[in-house]
Amino acid sequence: MTVYEVGPRDGLQNESAVLTTPSKLELIAALARAGLPFIEATSFVSPRAIPQLADADEVASALPLVPDVTYLALVPNEKGLQRLRAAQDRPGIPKLWPAVFVSASESHNRKNQNRGVEETLSEIEKLVRDVRAEGSRVRAYVSTAFGCPFEGAVDPRRVAAIVDRLLGCGCYQVSLGDTIGVGTPTQTRRLVDIVLREAPPDSIALHMHDTHGTALANVLAALDRGIATFDASVGGLGGCPYAPGASGNLATEDLVYMLVGMGLETGVDYGRLVEAGRLAERLLGHRLPGRALLAERTREV
Amino acid sequence: MTVYEVGPRDGLQNESAVLTTPSKLELIAALARAGLPFIEATSFVSPRAIPQLADADEVASALPLVPDVTYLALVPNEKGLQRLRAAQDRPGIPKLWPAVFVSASESHNRKNQNRGVEETLSEIEKLVRDVRAEGSRVRAYVSTAFGCPFEGAVDPRRVAAIVDRLLGCGCYQVSLGDTIGVGTPTQTRRLVDIVLREAPPDSIALHMHDTHGTALANVLAALDRGIATFDASVGGLGGCPYAPGASGNLATEDLVYMLVGMGLETGVDYGRLVEAGRLAERLLGHRLPGRALLAERTREV
Repeated sequence: MTVYEVGPRDGLQNESAVLTTPSKLELIAALARAGLPFIEATSFVSPRAIPQLADADEVASALPLVPDVTYLALVPNEKGLQRLRAAQDRPGIPKLWPAVFVSASESHNRKNQNRGVEETLSEIEKLVRDVRAEGSRVRAYVSTAFGCPFEGAVDPRRVAAIVDRLLGCGCYQVSLGDTIGVGTPTQTRRLVDIVLREAPPDSIALHMHDTHGTALANVLAALDRGIATFDASVGGLGGCPYAPGASGNLATEDLVYMLVGMGLETGVDYGRLVEAGRLAERLLGHRLPGRALLAERTREV
Repeated sequence: MTVYEVGPRDGLQNESAVLTTPSKLELIAALARAGLPFIEATSFVSPRAIPQLADADEVASALPLVPDVTYLALVPNEKGLQRLRAAQDRPGIPKLWPAVFVSASESHNRKNQNRGVEETLSEIEKLVRDVRAEGSRVRAYVSTAFGCPFEGAVDPRRVAAIVDRLLGCGCYQVSLGDTIGVGTPTQTRRLVDIVLREAPPDSIALHMHDTHGTALANVLAALDRGIATFDASVGGLGGCPYAPGASGNLATEDLVYMLVGMGLETGVDYGRLVEAGRLAERLLGHRLPGRALLAERTREV
């Protein structure tokens, strides 16, 4: 089982509070110490679009060197890739893998990237070619793979076609995102079944949101189909800013609690992960929505 | 699919605020209007032990008459049964079915009932015989079926043996409770498989807590094994009083959201259920931890 920690990027970009660069690095170090093998550390998007991650260059050039930890950073376009390269243009610092993203629904992609899905895919194809020539690997995200806030249901065949393009151009893995947290196990099974007709199981990951409490049920449905890679955010960091306590990302502690309880090996130290969750709460100055984090707090009362 | 609503009993008994009798009846009526077929309305335990439900007699004698709704009340012993009978000793009021309970672990049963498991089972056997002679049906709960706060892991064969006793003496259904919310899908499958060796699937229900976020994953695991009855509490009412926002009972909205999204028929109107959840929040004066309830609030912002 492989857990991708997305809190420092996907989590923090949805928080109204902006952490200082040293605070971010402290959180990333705590997550690395917990044994998380992949940590999405930041995003090279426009600082105007996402001021929370405006220090991507500083973060990328000061990542803690921890054995067996791979860092990733979101890269929306050629310009983002140049920033990533510049930040890493120094010997002895941990290597960052770029991650690219596209929405499964046309309207969400236009809203998010101000261009159509086809245009995004074309730029990704070029970008991945360049990056692979430099010897790096690229991960891809497909947003709104379960449902779109503007278009509603999304055809799983459309998602499968996008996955084909992304794997075809050399991305090593595609993470299917339930961006608005509407997925159910039946839908997860259908989507995974269709995608796995062409893609090998280890090339597919799931990125579930716990908006309706169904994230772990969807993880279970995908596990049963052979998917072994799941994204999660420490403490459920990145909950919806409009509803205090409301949940966006699946909490890493909840995911690891379930996987470990099922006898599956993750390499993550649950106790240290809970400590990292507490650190995130202290740094942000408020509680996070993850269930297990709350349960562990209660246990100590 | 059958959903048992336990909020007015299991939920309210874990709230520090005590609702007035009219408020409880208003909540129960809203739940009945939402189409929930079974509602656990109150408990005839000692008012000293659980002051939140001290008005069980008043609630039981004033339940709203709604077609196709069956009410249940927890009955710990002969004295509780006499109170139930007295409260119902009037023509034209909705019938209450008694529900009995026992823990799978000796220490929890002693802590909860001040007597051993065998003693509780013996009294249940006598009580069920009397009740059935009067033409009523009896449901049973097995607490700590997944884990005990004092003893840790609980042997599923021990749970299966208690289920045998309960079904053997005439209970129509046994609900297996994950009282401290530690269960994982692997454990759920193991427990259900062992219990279903002797018991028919429709005689077994699951009562999951969402303490670590695994409740719906456990529901899915049991669904796949043929279990079709699940307990839940409106809004997740009855969260742990020591941690604001922490979750105890699985929220009924989350359960219904998932079941409906999987194309399964519950008979419950999701929109009216969310209204009942909002009513519970207004009556209690604070937000409830259910995920879907928060998601629906956000959607309207």
